[in-house]
Amino acid sequence: MTSKKLVNTVAGCADDALAGLVACNPSLQLLHGHRVALRSDLDSLKGRVALLSGGGSGHEPAHAGFIGKGMLTGVIAGAVFTSPAVGSILAAIRAVAQVGTVGTLLIVKNYTGDRLNFGLAREQAQAEGIPVEMVVIGDDSAFTVLKKAGRRGLCGTVLIHKVAGALAEAGVGLEEITKRVSAVAQAMGTLGVSLSSCSAPGSRPTFELAADEVELGLGIHGEAGVRRIKMASADEIVTLMLDHMTASSNVSHVPVRAGSSVVLMVNNLGGLSFLELGIIADAAVRALEGRGVKIARALVGTFMSALEMPGISLTLLLVDEPLLKLIDAETTASAWPNVAKVPVTGRKRSRAAPAEPLEASVSTTEGGLTSKRVVLVLERVCATLLGLEDRLNALDRAAGDGDCGTTHSRAARAIQGWLKEGPPPASPTQLLSKLSLLLLEKMGGSSGALYGLFLTAAAQPLKAKTDLPAWSAAMDAGLEAMQKYGKAAPGDRTMLDSLWAAGQELQAWKSPGANLFQVLTKAVQGSRWANGTPKEITL
Amino acid sequence: MTSKKLVNTVAGCADDALAGLVACNPSLQLLHGHRVALRSDLDSLKGRVALLSGGGSGHEPAHAGFIGKGMLTGVIAGAVFTSPAVGSILAAIRAVAQVGTVGTLLIVKNYTGDRLNFGLAREQAQAEGIPVEMVVIGDDSAFTVLKKAGRRGLCGTVLIHKVAGALAEAGVGLEEITKRVSAVAQAMGTLGVSLSSCSAPGSRPTFELAADEVELGLGIHGEAGVRRIKMASADEIVTLMLDHMTASSNVSHVPVRAGSSVVLMVNNLGGLSFLELGIIADAAVRALEGRGVKIARALVGTFMSALEMPGISLTLLLVDEPLLKLIDAETTASAWPNVAKVPVTGRKRSRAAPAEPLEASVSTTEGGLTSKRVVLVLERVCATLLGLEDRLNALDRAAGDGDCGTTHSRAARAIQGWLKEGPPPASPTQLLSKLSLLLLEKMGGSSGALYGLFLTAAAQPLKAKTDLPAWSAAMDAGLEAMQKYGKAAPGDRTMLDSLWAAGQELQAWKSPGANLFQVLTKAVQGSRWANGTPKEITL
Repeated sequence: MTSKKLVNTVAGCADDALAGLVACNPSLQLLHGHRVALRSDLDSLKGRVALLSGGGSGHEPAHAGFIGKGMLTGVIAGAVFTSPAVGSILAAIRAVAQVGTVGTLLIVKNYTGDRLNFGLAREQAQAEGIPVEMVVIGDDSAFTVLKKAGRRGLCGTVLIHKVAGALAEAGVGLEEITKRVSAVAQAMGTLGVSLSSCSAPGSRPTFELAADEVELGLGIHGEAGVRRIKMASADEIVTLMLDHMTASSNVSHVPVRAGSSVVLMVNNLGGLSFLELGIIADAAVRALEGRGVKIARALVGTFMSALEMPGISLTLLLVDEPLLKLIDAETTASAWPNVAKVPVTGRKRSRAAPAEPLEASVSTTEGGLTSKRVVLVLERVCATLLGLEDRLNALDRAAGDGDCGTTHSRAARAIQGWLKEGPPPASPTQLLSKLSLLLLEKMGGSSGALYGLFLTAAAQPLKAKTDLPAWSAAMDAGLEAMQKYGKAAPGDRTMLDSLWAAGQELQAWKSPGANLFQVLTKAVQGSRWANGTPKEITL
Repeated sequence: MTSKKLVNTVAGCADDALAGLVACNPSLQLLHGHRVALRSDLDSLKGRVALLSGGGSGHEPAHAGFIGKGMLTGVIAGAVFTSPAVGSILAAIRAVAQVGTVGTLLIVKNYTGDRLNFGLAREQAQAEGIPVEMVVIGDDSAFTVLKKAGRRGLCGTVLIHKVAGALAEAGVGLEEITKRVSAVAQAMGTLGVSLSSCSAPGSRPTFELAADEVELGLGIHGEAGVRRIKMASADEIVTLMLDHMTASSNVSHVPVRAGSSVVLMVNNLGGLSFLELGIIADAAVRALEGRGVKIARALVGTFMSALEMPGISLTLLLVDEPLLKLIDAETTASAWPNVAKVPVTGRKRSRAAPAEPLEASVSTTEGGLTSKRVVLVLERVCATLLGLEDRLNALDRAAGDGDCGTTHSRAARAIQGWLKEGPPPASPTQLLSKLSLLLLEKMGGSSGALYGLFLTAAAQPLKAKTDLPAWSAAMDAGLEAMQKYGKAAPGDRTMLDSLWAAGQELQAWKSPGANLFQVLTKAVQGSRWANGTPKEITL
């Protein structure tokens, strides 16, 4: 069975995808009648070298995402995983020649079809008198024994786009650019690894992996890799990859050693989560720095994909300062990341967290309260909650998820434990703030957060005064915070209902006639309303 | 069974991923002891408003990818799909306050946990005297009936990061930014669709879809959507999504109508191929423009993911010119795309391909050649190839993939068909060029490309002269091109071998003693060498 894809027709995939990219990127335009995207500002390139690349579709954002000032002039796309048509390559060469560019460099990944078709278009264009050079990029470090076909062109090609683009933008000539990028292309290596295969639209996955297997040394067309290994941790896999890529016994290795300066690319092959990409990037930085390699720049993202393949490739490019300047040069290409021009290795990666504000010393008596009285009240509350655990759970099973008693018991035990550590503050602000942190940390869940919110907000009005109106204001502040962040209103049958009813009653404390018993009665009435079980609770 | 992931430990995922992101992005730093990333240049923010966002991990590049000048000041990340700790949010607020910012805006996606934890940190920070505001973003357009919890925060949140960031960078005050972004947040909608679920590290996928089903109206935590629909084309799915998002009967709709100006975001939920993303972008642009909607800007990429979910979300934000200026403002955030400040709708998206160079009129006689003689030779070659089809296939089955005869017959029939259209050119350059194009188009495969290369290159030396040394030079040029682009050398047992042997012999034509029979004999000897079957072919 073929895999599900969000497409219109299998045949139209490459055209539709390129059309979408160009439609959404006003810096690009299509060349009518061809699967070719070119810079919109072609006319500004008079007197400069044009850079064309391309190949089969399915590697997005490569290559059209790298069109822009300071990178490619245009790309020619084939059908999915299929080399582009010679006629379209030739049409692109003619189009960039027409605006007065002084020559074209074709940047081609080393695959037979691409080599032949770009080569052919080059020969034809040269026959028409257009100066065209071609560099074939083979950055694959998978093969320990080199086959006739040579190293495959992989993600490192994007670095060549960047270097060539910076040179062309600087006005360097065709021959010199060709020479420079050919040298750069020799100084890099790429290796891929994937958790499973990918499938071209209308086709089945190209290979199958067991649940505990990983494919190493992949190409970018769903072809199987050079080795199948057992699933391992990100650190272990990255170590294995770096060992393989840099081993001098591997003819396709990149000679990265202690002291080397490199650009690191961590490339999503398509379907890996960016969470995992970050984990791999972390592992790669640690592993390289552990080997004494200096990472000058690190690019993390999707650069050269193999459709939805859930894997990554690592690319290492040996750099010196002049080359780094080209990597750092400005570009408007949409898929080139914003990278700070600062070395990865050697900089400080964290700052100290500010100290928490100093706590006022705990006073054991304030206003009418003493620590002793606080202990008595809290002990009574805790004992009551613990005694009601089963009852509250049973009620909650009818109305919710059945853990109300358990959650409140957890809170009660946390408070009991805390009381054993020493006398609690008698200052209401300090007391409520402490209880807030305690419930947040120990009670957990939404209840913990809501009580925490309530107590944090309630603590504030008690800073200045601790009389009855201040306690009423504290209740109101707590209720307001609960409503604001919890998004519940009185009557929504939440824990807010009983607290709200009590709060309403507490406002009557401002008058001399009210008493605590009335407040609690209201709270119970509130809870009855909330749970819809008016006769279940008696005080 | 849990899905394969490239991680170190399930518990460490969020920390490792954030560490990797910060390590590779020198514009960021971690806050020691917390899962918090902050701008490295915090000290430059004195006197400005700080912007903090965050939430559970698993949505990368959101939110840390949007830290930078002109966007966020920092983010607080929770474990995968889990709200961040209040203590870390508070630590981040304190850290940005410490450098002299004049207040902090918390940009929070509408989920209970985030609302509570950010709210709590806000209350605590305010209790410490730090001015903190909070906006809760709900851009989800999935729910046609609004639940108490309100609209969920999805990809549109990134646009709020951008707008708030541009305002903060411009020196606007906390209250004004809060007011402005709250209004902007009301003018957008987001809807997701996916081909399957995702799974948190260590967990199973959160829902299952049949091979012909698609999930509509998803959140970004792997939760199921509002509707399960039958698989359809990209155009049909996009139409359905836009209908749902903009229908006034949907309480969570975004009121986009004919004449509306919008920013369109096409967001990869994580694991979709970028090929499909382009196809969806194309469909969305066509569908919106078909409804008379003006697309001011279109952002295509991975902005707010749900781990490796293979789906997309569309976000529409109603914009006017002042808002567009904020969207266009510069930012150094690594995950914000390079977008040209040019409207998507209304611009010309393609240019005409340059005309092919004018062909010289076909001359039916040139040098010693006439069209008649060319026809005779070609007819004979074609008849011979067609007669040898089975024989060549049989030989190729022993040495290769068994289609050599079929491929050559296809070429022969193409040449026969072409000869019927009119007299072939007698000019050798024109003749070889024509044959090159014909074989490229009709013969196909590597053989077609290689013959095409050979003939194109061979045509050039025959432009000036058509004597025997010129034909020998033509043969050499063709062979050189074949070797250069085909990467085969004589003796590699490829089609090059017999041609190369013939080329060597052809050089003797320069001397009067050589004749065509010798050339052909050499070619046959070459082919024997190539196929390793010396007695199979007789001339």
